[in-house]
Amino acid sequence: MRFAGGEVAVGSYEEAGVSIDAGNRAAALMRAAVESTHGPGVVPLPGGFAGLYRLSGYREPVLASTVDGVGTKVLVADELGRYTSLGADIVNHCANDVLATGARPLIFLDYVASGRLIPEVVAGIVSGAAEACRELGVALVGGETAEMPDLYGSALDVVGACLGVCERGELVTGELVRAGDAVLGLASSGLHTNGYTLARRVLADAGVGYGDTWRGLGRTVGEEYLEPHRAYVRQIEALRREVEVRGMAHVTGGGLVENLPRALGGLGARLRAGSWEEPPVFAMIRELGGIPEDEMRRVFNLGVGFCVVVGAAEAGRALKILHGTGCKAWHIGEVVENGGTVEFA
Amino acid sequence: MRFAGGEVAVGSYEEAGVSIDAGNRAAALMRAAVESTHGPGVVPLPGGFAGLYRLSGYREPVLASTVDGVGTKVLVADELGRYTSLGADIVNHCANDVLATGARPLIFLDYVASGRLIPEVVAGIVSGAAEACRELGVALVGGETAEMPDLYGSALDVVGACLGVCERGELVTGELVRAGDAVLGLASSGLHTNGYTLARRVLADAGVGYGDTWRGLGRTVGEEYLEPHRAYVRQIEALRREVEVRGMAHVTGGGLVENLPRALGGLGARLRAGSWEEPPVFAMIRELGGIPEDEMRRVFNLGVGFCVVVGAAEAGRALKILHGTGCKAWHIGEVVENGGTVEFA
Repeated sequence: MRFAGGEVAVGSYEEAGVSIDAGNRAAALMRAAVESTHGPGVVPLPGGFAGLYRLSGYREPVLASTVDGVGTKVLVADELGRYTSLGADIVNHCANDVLATGARPLIFLDYVASGRLIPEVVAGIVSGAAEACRELGVALVGGETAEMPDLYGSALDVVGACLGVCERGELVTGELVRAGDAVLGLASSGLHTNGYTLARRVLADAGVGYGDTWRGLGRTVGEEYLEPHRAYVRQIEALRREVEVRGMAHVTGGGLVENLPRALGGLGARLRAGSWEEPPVFAMIRELGGIPEDEMRRVFNLGVGFCVVVGAAEAGRALKILHGTGCKAWHIGEVVENGGTVEFA
Repeated sequence: MRFAGGEVAVGSYEEAGVSIDAGNRAAALMRAAVESTHGPGVVPLPGGFAGLYRLSGYREPVLASTVDGVGTKVLVADELGRYTSLGADIVNHCANDVLATGARPLIFLDYVASGRLIPEVVAGIVSGAAEACRELGVALVGGETAEMPDLYGSALDVVGACLGVCERGELVTGELVRAGDAVLGLASSGLHTNGYTLARRVLADAGVGYGDTWRGLGRTVGEEYLEPHRAYVRQIEALRREVEVRGMAHVTGGGLVENLPRALGGLGARLRAGSWEEPPVFAMIRELGGIPEDEMRRVFNLGVGFCVVVGAAEAGRALKILHGTGCKAWHIGEVVENGGTVEFA
């Protein structure tokens, strides 16, 4: 267990191929970064068995919690030897899931497991997570670094858990969504953390390397594939201060097709293909792999990382507020009665 | 993301070796078990992006959170083809960490990753976790099932996150611990979830199989190695209703030597070797591997899974209460001034 205080116990011993010294060195490297995320809510308890956070100022608090991993995006990082952005990936992915319920992300914990603990790699990931937490006002209160040579070989997994809170009345459950409401899409930064098994296979089959480039990318494929998952916390906070948000969806595995209906309280949506900008990485994958559009839509976010549903009359004002936060956003479609499905017009 | 509602999205697709059907089948198998853990605190939100829990009745709530994995105990389960007990392992491990801060475990989330998603295996693990949650009054509000053939091969990882809560004044930080206080040890059920890299290597080097037995075990080595991690939630609740508990330690990786000092507010402890019952599995490992006592003490719990510190005058009454819960417990030593270390007399 690694704690708010910064200790690493790898839970094993040199003789069996597990290095306690390496764990302790990783801990020293990341301690300062982790502590920099601790606002007044964190109760310091060096060596404590769990991270402590004081919740104050809520009348009817509801806790929203989620756990997720970055998936096979780690294999891209591994091949390029660049791990730090995985920290932002997992923090932002988890924070967006919490955000989509109407809660504000408060606390994050990381779990990094590998066959061989390279202190600089783990410290890079955790420091990256700490930086992402700091940007969102989230406290990184604990984590675990596990070294398991027999289980992971040379592989690595990066997992996170995030907890948020809101007043009961601030939950966004989709029950206020009505046919005719506007669906707004917020721009993703690229692949985020989904579809990497397919995205990697397409490259391999086409013989395209991470050092290669592709028209429109403006950088190497490797750099594009490692672009961190974007968080929408500030954008949604700014929006909700002025506009009633009736539904929110984090567009992850399953794409718009599977994730948007989760925000619609049983209704469906009709989206206008081409009403948002699709980043060039998706065209590259579509062309290289000859992937049918149906599958593209079920695997990738295609440029929309997060959706909000607002009353039709509010769409223009909502877009203006989102643009004011520096985020590209588009009016991509409408809520319709076709229960639970997404159509493309 | 798999939710309170029971959905599994494996985040990928048949073509790349990932089976969405298998994921959905696993979800159906575990849904009922997961829902059986949902008391009145859980806010139902089928398809929601995070699990929701209503916190009520606290004046100054402090949240205690932790994340951990079962480590290479999964390799024992894998070899024996018996996975269900891993669910109790991860729930009880995490719950004890939360408990040691003075908080009551409330919420649990699981993360199960594997190279190939076998629905019955995942459902077994999650159902086992749900049963352990139900016994502790913990709500299993979310989880993730990840299938990553390129990353995990045939391996499996089982990770959990647990959140608990208590009033600020109920935190047990070790600051009330005084020299002369009594250290009580609560019986472990065996290896719990630590030291498996060494415990497995010792067997392999000695040519002992999981189907073999050993004097005193009364069952096969495999059954002994899979014995679930014990939770101490009920025991500690019963104790704290009547006795002031000044420090608590969950004895995991690092053994008593590294974990007990974390409960002592900067003081140390002198323990009486032989004052508690050591389960025969530890003698087996010590003998088979020729492991020095120092290493045994730094790797294994040696029979004490959890420690509490109480005033010397309260030791007898505290033991009586613990025994009343059906848990073996012993007065194993005293708090002394030797800052931060544990001595054995």
